[in-house]
Amino acid sequence: MMPTSVLVVGTGLLGTSVALSLRDSDFDVEVWLHDENPDASARAADMGAGTVGLPESDPDLVLVAVPPLVTGSVVAQWQRRYATSTFTDVASVKAGPLEDLLAAGGDPTRYVGGHPMAGREVSGPAGARVDLFVDRVWAITPLDGTDLDRVALVRGVAENAGAVPVMLDPTTHDRAVALTSHAPQVVSSLLAARLAHADPSEVMVSGQGLRDVTRIAASDPELWTEIIAANADQVLDVLDELHDDLQTMRDALRHLGGADGGTAGDLADITYLLHQGNVGRARVPDKHGDRLAPEYSVVAVQIDDRPGELGRLFAAAGEAEVNIEDVRIDHALGRLVAVVELLVRPEVAQGLSDSLAAAGYRLRG
Amino acid sequence: MMPTSVLVVGTGLLGTSVALSLRDSDFDVEVWLHDENPDASARAADMGAGTVGLPESDPDLVLVAVPPLVTGSVVAQWQRRYATSTFTDVASVKAGPLEDLLAAGGDPTRYVGGHPMAGREVSGPAGARVDLFVDRVWAITPLDGTDLDRVALVRGVAENAGAVPVMLDPTTHDRAVALTSHAPQVVSSLLAARLAHADPSEVMVSGQGLRDVTRIAASDPELWTEIIAANADQVLDVLDELHDDLQTMRDALRHLGGADGGTAGDLADITYLLHQGNVGRARVPDKHGDRLAPEYSVVAVQIDDRPGELGRLFAAAGEAEVNIEDVRIDHALGRLVAVVELLVRPEVAQGLSDSLAAAGYRLRG
Repeated sequence: MMPTSVLVVGTGLLGTSVALSLRDSDFDVEVWLHDENPDASARAADMGAGTVGLPESDPDLVLVAVPPLVTGSVVAQWQRRYATSTFTDVASVKAGPLEDLLAAGGDPTRYVGGHPMAGREVSGPAGARVDLFVDRVWAITPLDGTDLDRVALVRGVAENAGAVPVMLDPTTHDRAVALTSHAPQVVSSLLAARLAHADPSEVMVSGQGLRDVTRIAASDPELWTEIIAANADQVLDVLDELHDDLQTMRDALRHLGGADGGTAGDLADITYLLHQGNVGRARVPDKHGDRLAPEYSVVAVQIDDRPGELGRLFAAAGEAEVNIEDVRIDHALGRLVAVVELLVRPEVAQGLSDSLAAAGYRLRG
Repeated sequence: MMPTSVLVVGTGLLGTSVALSLRDSDFDVEVWLHDENPDASARAADMGAGTVGLPESDPDLVLVAVPPLVTGSVVAQWQRRYATSTFTDVASVKAGPLEDLLAAGGDPTRYVGGHPMAGREVSGPAGARVDLFVDRVWAITPLDGTDLDRVALVRGVAENAGAVPVMLDPTTHDRAVALTSHAPQVVSSLLAARLAHADPSEVMVSGQGLRDVTRIAASDPELWTEIIAANADQVLDVLDELHDDLQTMRDALRHLGGADGGTAGDLADITYLLHQGNVGRARVPDKHGDRLAPEYSVVAVQIDDRPGELGRLFAAAGEAEVNIEDVRIDHALGRLVAVVELLVRPEVAQGLSDSLAAAGYRLRG
């Protein structure tokens, strides 16, 4: 169900992007824009996101897109002005804003929490895009008693933006993002921090594994401090569990490195922890939203590292009628060749290898 | 400098691959193959890796390719038979085998440690390939007093295999692989283990960050238990440091989640730790062996998720004469489209975008 009138409070990246998607809709949606900073709302209006100002009568929906720590109180404040409107937000945590709303005397029956997962950590209204949420998860966190028509309104906005709505209760949501996003950020950063003072010769031997594990350690520290602090309890729960396993691992390593060289039990502890990692990893959805198993097969091909070579390779793969599921490119250390790993479903790997070999490519197994 | 005769002791994946690269050389190298398991050496010989048996007179080089925990004693044992030969090995740690060699009465002046980093964790002689080490780092760990001619011999074998030799002392090597490979493995596994008992609704919101951080958590637990246990002291040092930072992070989160809501100091602690992660991450070499900065620009394109579409896209990119540095494919959740992110040098991004748009592609900024 689509709203016919929406007020967007806060025209940063997320608010402006939602507004753009509403204006781009097949439905006729009136969009009002408001921001504490008049330049920001004017900028959003210039981008075609709607009209600067406040509606006289209650809009169907008020979307509050302000930082998590003030979301609850801002929703409560605007609920006093628009006494019948449905309210939603875009905060990356959901339990805290709800608590803040209640503490500020807001009406929880008119509030349907939302968290569109834009996927990339960019910021500022200039980065707003009509398609920011296409194919992204948009978590919606109604309470047990929330009116279904109000939920449908938020769902309509999410679907109109091309997102995939996922219904969760607020606490499950916060636990989920702690597990899948906030704790991984902490762990990646703490691991990468070990390299901050490493000798250059020590980092010279780095491989793809380290690059993968530390990729998100490049994230903005200020932004992530806000995100993690707003979900402190849930992130702490995950890190407490991780800390217990880390103690087991360190104990085993201390025994193994000690004078008596440790026991079979120490080795079994390490194997068990690594095995649990296998089990957890197998539960991470792949890019198709499915489980990872079965693993894709890798067809590795050596090409010259210059324009057009990838095009020729992919054209050759296309002629084999094989769908490439993912691609990794491993440039050589200081050489003018690259190894391209094509990830494909196992049953088509041999056919692809044969086709590429027939086309003169050097396969690297 | 190339050896004219080499004995390979242990014809598993690594030993057989080195033997194949020696036989494939422009130089005339006599290669002898020996394994405790006669089937393994016969298999390697069938693959063209050399001749089964032991040379009568001392070979120039003996390459010992057996598990790390027995490498030192096996080197010492064969040094008694071949009293003038240079010895090297392929163990993933270097200090332990040297200690074991000394304890077994071996001659350290004739031993030059080696660690070819094959990059992928496959095992068994069937996986042996002549090009397994092409463009991979091959760490070589001479001691202060090691004869330079003996070092040159090992370097010659590494270069002949297409690898990039990197000289390190044994302890620096072990610290380096603890930092860049073994501790990352532990951290990835411990994080992934948190998902082992998560509710399905909790893992549904996973994104690319989690996939990256947990990718290597799929590694073989038994193999990695051996690797980590053989480097217990160095891995423990890294994990001890990480543990200290984890304590700081947990303390800050506990304060922030507590009744008084924490202080600015708690937030500053979190920001500092995340910032240290930025610093460390910036030191990880990229695929070209350079520092990561400057970041590549991303040109995101939406395509249909079916055979041939990638080929058409890359052909279009090739026509723009732009070199694609890396590729990420983000399949949509349950949709028949994929978003392909092309990573290119910043100065060519606009030209590529324009060319692709002109060719009718839908860009996703």
